[in-house]
Amino acid sequence: MSIALTEAHCAATRGEVPIGAVVVKDGQIIARAGNRTRELNDPTAHAEVLVIREACHKLDDERLTGCDLYATLEPCTMCAAAISFARIRRLYYGAQDIKGGGVENGARFFAQPTCHHAPEVYSGFQEQQAEIMLKEFFRLKRL
Amino acid sequence: MSIALTEAHCAATRGEVPIGAVVVKDGQIIARAGNRTRELNDPTAHAEVLVIREACHKLDDERLTGCDLYATLEPCTMCAAAISFARIRRLYYGAQDIKGGGVENGARFFAQPTCHHAPEVYSGFQEQQAEIMLKEFFRLKRL
Repeated sequence: MSIALTEAHCAATRGEVPIGAVVVKDGQIIARAGNRTRELNDPTAHAEVLVIREACHKLDDERLTGCDLYATLEPCTMCAAAISFARIRRLYYGAQDIKGGGVENGARFFAQPTCHHAPEVYSGFQEQQAEIMLKEFFRLKRL
Repeated sequence: MSIALTEAHCAATRGEVPIGAVVVKDGQIIARAGNRTRELNDPTAHAEVLVIREACHKLDDERLTGCDLYATLEPCTMCAAAISFARIRRLYYGAQDIKGGGVENGARFFAQPTCHHAPEVYSGFQEQQAEIMLKEFFRLKRL
């Protein structure tokens, strides 16, 4: 999660919303990414989507069986569905996202009958650091 | 929608689930795509995500304000959220997807409180052609 937070911090320095994600398999980091929606002009370039795409590319497989994903914030509905499609084994995340989350909030995608693979979900990891970084980012934007 | 169906047919010839999508602005086709999850080893490479990414790239904007998206099948939850993030104006689609759809089925993303932009939605366009193509694809796969 510390590496995901580093990716979130790097995203902030690029002017992106500070969210980071890491994919791990057998104790090894397969991929790491931060948000790049602005840089890439791509509304799907959330940290979780980017890290899944990179991990799939590296493992030459469209399914990340046995892989775990760490994200600094509760994934949105798009990312929750991508995590399901990628067959992520375990999802660990930091802070909840009441306005935009899709795991414990809103669509609660993993509990939907249209979700055909749900990872184990663990939340609350280093949530304060993730929250502080997000609040500071939006505070500075409002100045 | 005919062009989206052509993209779906092309996807089938590549061994991909036959779903196609098109983004249109001011009567002009901005981007067109079919599923490429297998070819790209990317579980997020659904037709809708690809067409949104391509249209954003072409318009040099992460928001597709004033653009409409045509898809042969009801978008899944991931794609519905991507459509929302991209600020698509109108979504037209063909057949419903009871097992995997995220618009009229399952998460019904556009009706969630965590959805901050919902397009106008119109469905049932050339749905039989889309359904026949999908059924034939899966029938041949089972042989």
